[in-house]
Amino acid sequence: MKTEDMIIVSVDDHIVEPPDMFEQHVPVQLRAQAPRYEYEANGDGFWIFEDRRVSNTGLNAVVGRPRDEYGMEPAAISQMREGAYDVHKRVDDMNVNGLLASLNFGTFVGFDGAFFQGSSDKKLAHAMVQAYNDWHIDTWCGAYPGRFIPMAILPVWDIDLVVGEIKRVVKKGCHAVAFSDNPSLRGLPSIHNAHWEPLWKVCADNHVVLNCHIGTGAAAAHPSLESPIDAWITGMPMSISNSACDWVQLKALQKYPDLKVALSEGGIGWVPYFLERADFTFEHHHEWTHTDFGGKKPSDIFREHFITCFIDDKFGVKNREDIGVDIICYECDYPHSDTVWPEAPEYLMRNFVGCSDEDIDKITHLNAMRTYSFDPFKDIPREQCTVGALRAKATHVDTTPRSGGGNRPLAEGETRVVTSADIMKLFAEAGRVKEEA
Amino acid sequence: MKTEDMIIVSVDDHIVEPPDMFEQHVPVQLRAQAPRYEYEANGDGFWIFEDRRVSNTGLNAVVGRPRDEYGMEPAAISQMREGAYDVHKRVDDMNVNGLLASLNFGTFVGFDGAFFQGSSDKKLAHAMVQAYNDWHIDTWCGAYPGRFIPMAILPVWDIDLVVGEIKRVVKKGCHAVAFSDNPSLRGLPSIHNAHWEPLWKVCADNHVVLNCHIGTGAAAAHPSLESPIDAWITGMPMSISNSACDWVQLKALQKYPDLKVALSEGGIGWVPYFLERADFTFEHHHEWTHTDFGGKKPSDIFREHFITCFIDDKFGVKNREDIGVDIICYECDYPHSDTVWPEAPEYLMRNFVGCSDEDIDKITHLNAMRTYSFDPFKDIPREQCTVGALRAKATHVDTTPRSGGGNRPLAEGETRVVTSADIMKLFAEAGRVKEEA
Repeated sequence: MKTEDMIIVSVDDHIVEPPDMFEQHVPVQLRAQAPRYEYEANGDGFWIFEDRRVSNTGLNAVVGRPRDEYGMEPAAISQMREGAYDVHKRVDDMNVNGLLASLNFGTFVGFDGAFFQGSSDKKLAHAMVQAYNDWHIDTWCGAYPGRFIPMAILPVWDIDLVVGEIKRVVKKGCHAVAFSDNPSLRGLPSIHNAHWEPLWKVCADNHVVLNCHIGTGAAAAHPSLESPIDAWITGMPMSISNSACDWVQLKALQKYPDLKVALSEGGIGWVPYFLERADFTFEHHHEWTHTDFGGKKPSDIFREHFITCFIDDKFGVKNREDIGVDIICYECDYPHSDTVWPEAPEYLMRNFVGCSDEDIDKITHLNAMRTYSFDPFKDIPREQCTVGALRAKATHVDTTPRSGGGNRPLAEGETRVVTSADIMKLFAEAGRVKEEA
Repeated sequence: MKTEDMIIVSVDDHIVEPPDMFEQHVPVQLRAQAPRYEYEANGDGFWIFEDRRVSNTGLNAVVGRPRDEYGMEPAAISQMREGAYDVHKRVDDMNVNGLLASLNFGTFVGFDGAFFQGSSDKKLAHAMVQAYNDWHIDTWCGAYPGRFIPMAILPVWDIDLVVGEIKRVVKKGCHAVAFSDNPSLRGLPSIHNAHWEPLWKVCADNHVVLNCHIGTGAAAAHPSLESPIDAWITGMPMSISNSACDWVQLKALQKYPDLKVALSEGGIGWVPYFLERADFTFEHHHEWTHTDFGGKKPSDIFREHFITCFIDDKFGVKNREDIGVDIICYECDYPHSDTVWPEAPEYLMRNFVGCSDEDIDKITHLNAMRTYSFDPFKDIPREQCTVGALRAKATHVDTTPRSGGGNRPLAEGETRVVTSADIMKLFAEAGRVKEEA
């Protein structure tokens, strides 16, 4: 296959929520209480809701900058490439990157959408979750049919509301929800608790995929304050392996053949090791641990219920048979610093050495389409979906790196190695979620 | 190669310290203050030193039991297979398993030997570290030349004592020390702190390998209290990947070409993914993180300075070229529950499908011999070192599974799935290190 003939769907990108997102979708009597995007005197932006503020509005939304600015944290929407928050510019940036479609996680609401869980007025919070989903599905994804896989956030504090919201968004054609990779680390019951039974059922019944992004539970630990930040960045995707070990044990996976879990931004090259290890553990220990996979092995359960994804993972793609060719998807991670935008197709092609066209099609789009009940071709003729066709529409898009401004981890001119302490300080100052004094 | 022709060296096994170990090696004036092994009224054993006691004397030393007793925690030395603590029986068990030689981590002193770091009388503690090492090197390893790779523990609280102790044990032919995979999580400076510079230097100068066992710093987290314990067991080896991400960034590795680090019990199948990811991180981020590998890539540094090991890891062995055939060793993990004793050679051979004899020799013994400056063939003729020759000496060794007694995670007759909460309770009751009230 030629690079320009690929059809690429990404199952992990990010929206930086635009300031006007709550204007249309919040009931009029609650509109004054909706989250607002405001500015400090120095121009830094933040979201404010009830008495909580989120100053970090971009979370590493550095796409399009020179690489020496990847660690400079945008402090306001104005410091980001417009594709981060403007759907029209986003589609331009997708086109220039040859990307047909994209599933987008939120930013100020958290990758698992858990921000509203911390609200004191849960009725208000529920209305905001619904407004968020309506904006996401109708306004953002709705603007370009066939270009986005919609994904809802959940009112996770109330299981009945969760079920209700899923049924509501399914009617809008949404078959994905964001969920913590380890809710027990988010102040919620563990995945093994009967509490979640109605969630598993409603997802399975409606073909709704649970999307567990790295960092939403068992996040990578900074090894030490003095560690070069590269250590943390390196370990970040694989940190979801702790949760993979846990999810594969979930009994509901045996009960609901259609229940699907995505390990978002988790990488793929470590998966065959993990599957072999899970099988060894079962075979070697089940006589005292009493685990039981109904005649199957943990690796069977994984291949039936999980999807994985990668940005650039040649070893994983080479060993796709040991993962399962049907459970590998692509992700672009726009607008975060690991993205290879606007060269995703070129990076991807280097991963596909020795791959059949059939496998390339599965990994680039067919697996994502099947898993997410997503058919872009009903909206866009297939021949207009290729890398070549999309790029031909984007000749006006300027991809020249541009400086963006924001907060630096080091003082101007410093050239020492950036450490975990530097980045922790940067994010603490930005105040991921700051409780107002 | 035939199974019986392999020569197998394991770089990760464990000693359960025998009660009489301090009798010979502690200076007479300190003998009354040495750690003592005592018994509760109910027969449970524990080590006591100063006012601290360690009730868990075996830490999962369940080798030789029926598998349904693997979770039953031995509560006294008398409940373990004798090879756990008796060197003569150990060599019998090595022979019957076709194992030529073994590197042994301690138990009540911790895998990183950090127990004495918690002592109030550091002079006394230093004497005990030296007694421990003398016992380990002279009495345990010394009883069977060519059968053990000696490994010392360190007085980690004082860098000058550390250097002195390493120089002292090197004179006895010891070229391995136990060390935390993340000392910053043990109340010590991080590996990136200048504090450790003399340690790196003395190890490099004397070809002493730092052995970082899983669980000595960045240990696997229990995903939740309700998680089936299989989840924790599955993730345990790979949990060292967080530390691998950190160690590969260590500047001293670029300064000291001979500095070597072993990731003990870490498995190998995830390593190629990790190496590719470390290289991607470097290439993609170094312009702002300022990391610098002196013209090399992180993967080059890893292959020059690290050794890895596996128990049963077909995917890793299949992809040995992507790890580095020269940095893979075997481990047996006797007497812990992941061991495949007494069938290590049979398990191993199933990992070697398609391997050349040259690669098998490297992985089974040549890499370990080179890395640890260990030459068993000067003590034992090579033809007596094979699986077949060793097993021929062990026809009297009874390997029939025997019940061992101890503390169960579940009540008698219970058959529900064992959870993390069950195991945490079991170990809390055993009191890994209990401060006396």
